[in-house]
Amino acid sequence: MGHYNRFAGANLGRLEALSDGLFAVAMTLLVFDLHAPAAAAIARAGGLTGALVTLLPRLLVYLMSFLTLGIFWVGQQTGLNFLAATDRNLTWLHLGFLFAVSLMPFSTALMAGFIAYRAALLVYWCNIFLLGALLFAALRYAAGAGLVRADAPEGAHRAVERRIVIAQALYGVGAALCLFSTYASIGFIILVQLNYVIAPRVWGLDRL
Amino acid sequence: MGHYNRFAGANLGRLEALSDGLFAVAMTLLVFDLHAPAAAAIARAGGLTGALVTLLPRLLVYLMSFLTLGIFWVGQQTGLNFLAATDRNLTWLHLGFLFAVSLMPFSTALMAGFIAYRAALLVYWCNIFLLGALLFAALRYAAGAGLVRADAPEGAHRAVERRIVIAQALYGVGAALCLFSTYASIGFIILVQLNYVIAPRVWGLDRL
Amino acid sequence: MGHYNRFAGANLGRLEALSDGLFAVAMTLLVFDLHAPAAAAIARAGGLTGALVTLLPRLLVYLMSFLTLGIFWVGQQTGLNFLAATDRNLTWLHLGFLFAVSLMPFSTALMAGFIAYRAALLVYWCNIFLLGALLFAALRYAAGAGLVRADAPEGAHRAVERRIVIAQALYGVGAALCLFSTYASIGFIILVQLNYVIAPRVWGLDRL
Amino acid sequence: MGHYNRFAGANLGRLEALSDGLFAVAMTLLVFDLHAPAAAAIARAGGLTGALVTLLPRLLVYLMSFLTLGIFWVGQQTGLNFLAATDRNLTWLHLGFLFAVSLMPFSTALMAGFIAYRAALLVYWCNIFLLGALLFAALRYAAGAGLVRADAPEGAHRAVERRIVIAQALYGVGAALCLFSTYASIGFIILVQLNYVIAPRVWGLDRL
Repeated sequence: MGHYNRFAGANLGRLEALSDGLFAVAMTLLVFDLHAPAAAAIARAGGLTGALVTLLPRLLVYLMSFLTLGIFWVGQQTGLNFLAATDRNLTWLHLGFLFAVSLMPFSTALMAGFIAYRAALLVYWCNIFLLGALLFAALRYAAGAGLVRADAPEGAHRAVERRIVIAQALYGVGAALCLFSTYASIGFIILVQLNYVIAPRVWGLDRL
Repeated sequence: MGHYNRFAGANLGRLEALSDGLFAVAMTLLVFDLHAPAAAAIARAGGLTGALVTLLPRLLVYLMSFLTLGIFWVGQQTGLNFLAATDRNLTWLHLGFLFAVSLMPFSTALMAGFIAYRAALLVYWCNIFLLGALLFAALRYAAGAGLVRADAPEGAHRAVERRIVIAQALYGVGAALCLFSTYASIGFIILVQLNYVIAPRVWGLDRL
Repeated sequence: MGHYNRFAGANLGRLEALSDGLFAVAMTLLVFDLHAPAAAAIARAGGLTGALVTLLPRLLVYLMSFLTLGIFWVGQQTGLNFLAATDRNLTWLHLGFLFAVSLMPFSTALMAGFIAYRAALLVYWCNIFLLGALLFAALRYAAGAGLVRADAPEGAHRAVERRIVIAQALYGVGAALCLFSTYASIGFIILVQLNYVIAPRVWGLDRL
Repeated sequence: MGHYNRFAGANLGRLEALSDGLFAVAMTLLVFDLHAPAAAAIARAGGLTGALVTLLPRLLVYLMSFLTLGIFWVGQQTGLNFLAATDRNLTWLHLGFLFAVSLMPFSTALMAGFIAYRAALLVYWCNIFLLGALLFAALRYAAGAGLVRADAPEGAHRAVERRIVIAQALYGVGAALCLFSTYASIGFIILVQLNYVIAPRVWGLDRL
């Protein structure tokens, strides 16, 4: 007789579609938290410029989170590109990963509101750690369960895993810097992310 | 002459795309209800940690709803995977199912706000029941209307139906536990969901 | 030399994907306007039940709007299924249609808040009229520009057009009923929509 | 050994799906900022009509932003249609473009709230400029990196680039008009956008 868990959650295309939708919503909601100043609080034109300038640090936090989500979207995409199929266990690992994605607007709003508080930074770091750990677990499971395509480039799957481990080590250093200052943490994390986005071909930085 | 209802709503790919989009939005909006504490209410760093700790029960409710939506997304996907085509009746049954999905952020916010109230728990259970009943009706209709693929695995369609019936019976038991305590209900429902997510291969729990 | 408007907006698949995404967001945001009662306003368990009962008329309005969006999503899907290609003019007609879709959460919230006011009902009706008029224009343009597939079923394209005209006439009657009472309008519109959803095979109602 | 950046972000289909999702969310959130008047503020039926009339200028700003997003969605789609593949650099240029898309609801709400303030108009123009500059950079990079399809129509790629440069020059003129009046700027920008939407075949306006 048929048994549910043997067929369930086996559609790779729908997992990709759900992921793209959820990333798209989370990326847009990040900035949706950035409210225009209330009209009543702005007495004259100069007041608006001043209010906008005070929003700039928040904007930097949203940009950082957009980069985070972009980095993990590229990472997930790259991992899924090598798969021939999925099964219900792998699908659930990715649903866990997507839950961590859905937490990002909250973590980001928290850090934007409490930029000088270690508790906010640690919540944010936990969120990044969760993203990395679940994506790593999904990659490792896919390799072990024989779901990787036969024609996937040699060593590609391990290269994604290696990238996650190094990135998480760097994010960990960034989080530890909050012992000195949360601003040092944020600055370091943004530098790490810009390195992954720009991938400069000097000093082997693009191979981290 | 052509007649609208013979052609309407026959695109299976677009039904899947709409479903993935709607699940993605609902899953992200669940947690979007989790607001960062207001800066004015937090006088010092310890105050933030305290405020975050009080958010933990809400986070548990969001996680439960994310699991609920994940379970039903996997269930719908599995049912649709076996179909050769859709028609307007089946499309409308799935649109009804998606309406129940769109109610989840409301039911979840209600339960997160009134965790000790039976009325909130019963609304939440009604939502889960509606999801199950409409998905079951869609599966039954598809089988009767001859929309199932000829090469679908033997017994697979019935396995999905059976899974829904057993799950709804367990959710019903969970809801009934609110006669004693809403916390007992929530604990029981979370255990049922974790069982479906993890599918442990002991005592036949993965075959429930 | 190449000229932008000859190549622009020619991807039918992306128009479908944008439409599915936008319908999914609008459908979920409808109900997102349904806020859980504030905890401070609820003194005891009976108070919550009472507050939930007062939300029921709003829920009915959301259900009506979900049906509206579902009907137009099925209609757009059916029209696009017959197309071999799109061009920039047709794409812009559909973008206008999607703008009308994005207005539905506003029209719905307005009517849910002012259920007895004719102005709210007329705004809602304008929104439905805009949806129908733009979808009709898109169908007519596609036929005239030779974008319909050669193997589309005979008369199918006209059947979709005919359906829109009859439905708009019925919605117009519903709107006119607000001269007597907005409740009569809402009741009539819901009956029209249920007819289109259920398509009962009696008295030729499914052929309207 | 495999090296992450050689495989990462190479899925064109997922880039399109993420883009469609993000545009869909941003387009719907524009209007979601348009709140129905509070019931408490409306004493009688005439009061509601008056309140709705005062919302009309805001609605015009939302329509302008919807046109902006539509124009750039068509532009991005047209550019991506000519590609045979993507790589991680091009993917990141498009992620930057999508970040600018995610800022539009904020810029729009700002301008809707402060329609007579130059600072709001300049923020809005910066957002449009960012959209154009990043899309142009993506097109230029794709051509240089040999990612364009061999069978893309002759001169098509350059036609998209040319369209962006002319449009940005016109938007720049519109922004400069705020030295006289922000209303002149908004009127001019809406005229430019309507020209691109309607593409009238007179005076060569459709070839701008």
